Amino acid sequence: MRILMIGDIVGRLGRQTLQTYVPKLKSAYQPDVIVVNAENSANNGRGVTKEIVREFRSLGVHCLTLGNHTWGQSEIFDFIEEEEHLVRPANYPEGTPGKGFTTLSTPKGKVTVMNLMGRSFMSPLTLDCPMKSFEKMYKQISAGHYILVDFHAETTSEKQSFAWFVDGKASAVIGTHTHVQTADERILPKGTAYLTDVGMVGPYDGIIGMDRELVIRRYLTQLPVRFEVAGGRFQLNAVLLDFDSSTKKARRIQRIRIDEDSPWFH
Amino acid sequence: MRILMIGDIVGRLGRQTLQTYVPKLKSAYQPDVIVVNAENSANNGRGVTKEIVREFRSLGVHCLTLGNHTWGQSEIFDFIEEEEHLVRPANYPEGTPGKGFTTLSTPKGKVTVMNLMGRSFMSPLTLDCPMKSFEKMYKQISAGHYILVDFHAETTSEKQSFAWFVDGKASAVIGTHTHVQTADERILPKGTAYLTDVGMVGPYDGIIGMDRELVIRRYLTQLPVRFEVAGGRFQLNAVLLDFDSSTKKARRIQRIRIDEDSPWFH
Amino acid sequence: MRILMIGDIVGRLGRQTLQTYVPKLKSAYQPDVIVVNAENSANNGRGVTKEIVREFRSLGVHCLTLGNHTWGQSEIFDFIEEEEHLVRPANYPEGTPGKGFTTLSTPKGKVTVMNLMGRSFMSPLTLDCPMKSFEKMYKQISAGHYILVDFHAETTSEKQSFAWFVDGKASAVIGTHTHVQTADERILPKGTAYLTDVGMVGPYDGIIGMDRELVIRRYLTQLPVRFEVAGGRFQLNAVLLDFDSSTKKARRIQRIRIDEDSPWFH
Amino acid sequence: MRILMIGDIVGRLGRQTLQTYVPKLKSAYQPDVIVVNAENSANNGRGVTKEIVREFRSLGVHCLTLGNHTWGQSEIFDFIEEEEHLVRPANYPEGTPGKGFTTLSTPKGKVTVMNLMGRSFMSPLTLDCPMKSFEKMYKQISAGHYILVDFHAETTSEKQSFAWFVDGKASAVIGTHTHVQTADERILPKGTAYLTDVGMVGPYDGIIGMDRELVIRRYLTQLPVRFEVAGGRFQLNAVLLDFDSSTKKARRIQRIRIDEDSPWFH
Ligand SMILES: [Fe+2]
Ligand SMILES: [Fe+2]
Ligand SMILES: [Fe+2]
Ligand SMILES: [Fe+2]
Ligand SMILES: [Fe+2]
Ligand SMILES: [Fe+2]
Ligand SMILES: [Fe+2]
Ligand SMILES: [Fe+2]
Repeated sequence: MRILMIGDIVGRLGRQTLQTYVPKLKSAYQPDVIVVNAENSANNGRGVTKEIVREFRSLGVHCLTLGNHTWGQSEIFDFIEEEEHLVRPANYPEGTPGKGFTTLSTPKGKVTVMNLMGRSFMSPLTLDCPMKSFEKMYKQISAGHYILVDFHAETTSEKQSFAWFVDGKASAVIGTHTHVQTADERILPKGTAYLTDVGMVGPYDGIIGMDRELVIRRYLTQLPVRFEVAGGRFQLNAVLLDFDSSTKKARRIQRIRIDEDSPWFH
Repeated sequence: MRILMIGDIVGRLGRQTLQTYVPKLKSAYQPDVIVVNAENSANNGRGVTKEIVREFRSLGVHCLTLGNHTWGQSEIFDFIEEEEHLVRPANYPEGTPGKGFTTLSTPKGKVTVMNLMGRSFMSPLTLDCPMKSFEKMYKQISAGHYILVDFHAETTSEKQSFAWFVDGKASAVIGTHTHVQTADERILPKGTAYLTDVGMVGPYDGIIGMDRELVIRRYLTQLPVRFEVAGGRFQLNAVLLDFDSSTKKARRIQRIRIDEDSPWFH
Repeated sequence: MRILMIGDIVGRLGRQTLQTYVPKLKSAYQPDVIVVNAENSANNGRGVTKEIVREFRSLGVHCLTLGNHTWGQSEIFDFIEEEEHLVRPANYPEGTPGKGFTTLSTPKGKVTVMNLMGRSFMSPLTLDCPMKSFEKMYKQISAGHYILVDFHAETTSEKQSFAWFVDGKASAVIGTHTHVQTADERILPKGTAYLTDVGMVGPYDGIIGMDRELVIRRYLTQLPVRFEVAGGRFQLNAVLLDFDSSTKKARRIQRIRIDEDSPWFH
Repeated sequence: MRILMIGDIVGRLGRQTLQTYVPKLKSAYQPDVIVVNAENSANNGRGVTKEIVREFRSLGVHCLTLGNHTWGQSEIFDFIEEEEHLVRPANYPEGTPGKGFTTLSTPKGKVTVMNLMGRSFMSPLTLDCPMKSFEKMYKQISAGHYILVDFHAETTSEKQSFAWFVDGKASAVIGTHTHVQTADERILPKGTAYLTDVGMVGPYDGIIGMDRELVIRRYLTQLPVRFEVAGGRFQLNAVLLDFDSSTKKARRIQRIRIDEDSPWFH
């Protein structure tokens, strides 16, 4: 089983980059499943719309994950319940619209994708414990699934803690949210592939994707400044995961980083 | 000019790893200057002692930087004032013991090393603006220095903002604090080398260097748990920077990552 | 039913003040039940010891509540399980030692005392929802109890929200933690007595009970400073609650404030 | 010198309450100066408009203070510079529009009103030190002024620290922001009148003035909910301060609380 997990898609430029590169990545790597984090894919970088979900589907994306920007577009409430293979952090309070995990049936087996959110320095801070939420979901999943967790969190400490906690149970834990790819890919001792953050897709010259003049102005003046997605050059960050078909454990984890300083030849 | 910047040294295992690898790194890369972040180098992972400073000097480390753990060992107050080439975040309030930047004289020119701390999700939260602190120091530095900033911060947003803000003024901005190396090394348009985080030196199987059972227990129980530095296998993360001798701008930035899954051959 | 609820007892001076005034308060007001918040009663202002619990019992205190300093003395783990009528915030994670509510049997009826903690700006931030925790406990309590909630929280918003949420179910919601008595006592429309904060017992000239030179030094220097309980003059803050014996609803709420500027004559 | 300081005016109901009660308060207490905190006086509870400033002036309000909601209405940038006797927190970064203190000339002497903001749990967190900001302003004020500080902060600890720090220099430190009046009015040993929070003016049955269904829904669901100012019954909270004409120190501090449970007879 080979899964391509692509990090937070930011705004129009992120979506355009996806449109250009998904076909190339498919042809180069032949992934069985493609998962993207869609929490910043709306034009203003906050949330996702129904139309964008359709756009991603038509590119061959199998599953969408979210994060702290889940509710960024108010129309999400109209489709989050019925939309298949769209997951939001599972550790929102009981009764929250949407679901925290979904199972994809593929010719090579079942893949369960979970989305969870960290609690350190995240907003809202008051989610259920992601470790205990994982355990609850894990009990509901039949043996023999590949389990991929998109762990959306701020701190490296919380991300590493979660990954070690589920080592041997999840096939892979891939971090999202910081929009910067980390260089610490590894396979933990009991077989879980781990990367602290997969990074983002979108502007290369913004600040985590947003217009940098605006972000810097806010840091300097402490005045309210409304952020906008940056334009210009692009970047794409993703990770390719290979799993063993009998153990469902990770065999290989490879980071993908494409931008104008790191062009991609295939 | 070639600078080797090595990330947060964590505890005894971090120091042992440094002892083993600094000679190898020197022989392989011939850096003109070696800088290490020492904020976690004491046995318990908090702060630095006089003896550890001496140990680092004897390895050929030219300059030590710090961060939010600056005051972790109370003896720091006895030597921070007079100790040469030991810098703590410059944006502490006026009157704070120690200094925020220092200038090294080398046969190939002067290198000013600055230490600054971010304010988002850091403790204490109430530091001066790091951008304005940089500008104040920058005015005090004669033209023609290489300027290396160790920017100690939590969020990718604040780190990127700072780097873009000083692009063309600093020769390099290297992030520390998260203990995880990021994969986004680049040279910004006006010549500043940038890496969001250089990563740590110390335990490979801990959680950002600390014993993982203890960290996970605290996340799970929310009870007070005193952290200890982990043992076992090691990792070393660093970055190698080459600068142009006339412009003082960056020519090359190369990440170094050594651990048992990523062995180092030289 | 008349309950005297006394706010956070801080250090030795807080305990001495209690020793002096509890007999006077008993004789003046004849309360059926006395509850005190003991989270700061140890000598250093953090937590409570077995000996201090005994001291409070011998004064006629019926029930002790706690808060974010519950675990401040490590010996708490030795007695929190078996100690009767000692409650810690109920919304700690499942499996936390101790209990979140207790029922006192009095000649005039049963009084259930609950302790809950807010989540805004509190540490740890990751507790269960206090509103949902209340509802779980409420279902376990037979009808006809008086229910007193010590709601230990930082923000007025969270305290008011909780009180309105349980209006008509709890007999009284009394806030603790800020150590400053508020002047907003009232009976909500469905019968719950409410006070945002009852205030503290201990030093009158400290900063929320701690030595003020130390606290101010920390604000000014941002250096680590270990706080100590202040000495000198005292203050006592409490609230007297009268409930209707048939409806268990509040009939009257009266603040008590005693200090050298507000002496007490009885 | 007698000053009437009135706490955060919240929305339309707050303004209507002010319109009803300012004439009565003037006639009953004959204050020389009236100061109100206007940070929540716009219809949605965020910021203040030019028209509302005029409305307050026509009621005889001499000076307006602000807080973390200073920039809540974007039109503030059009008038904050030239509007006389309208102050925003003085410890915003240098270059911020508006001023942090103003001096009123009255027949009985000069009154300087300062506005400062705390940094604990406030947004933005990155203001200058309020204690040092006070000292800078204090040096600019000629001797013989009455000095009133509106200290806008979340924690009781930071408010008390500030008041003790300026004891003997400020004539009074009155806290705002929590919207709940505290019962700890006192005159500190060197003559500064102090009250941790003066409380708000506006809805009596909201949550710190906002519609309580909306606030509770956000606590329960953690979903984004846009708050609105509540309607219904009113409350008014204020404080009356008397100062000695020769020493400029406080002689008396008296809380005022008016609501339907605490009617006002004059
Ligand atoms: Fe996110
Ligand atoms: Fe994101
Ligand atoms: Fe560190
Ligand atoms: Fe650090
Ligand atoms: Fe307390
Ligand atoms: Fe507390
Ligand atoms: Fe306010
Ligand atoms: Fe405010």
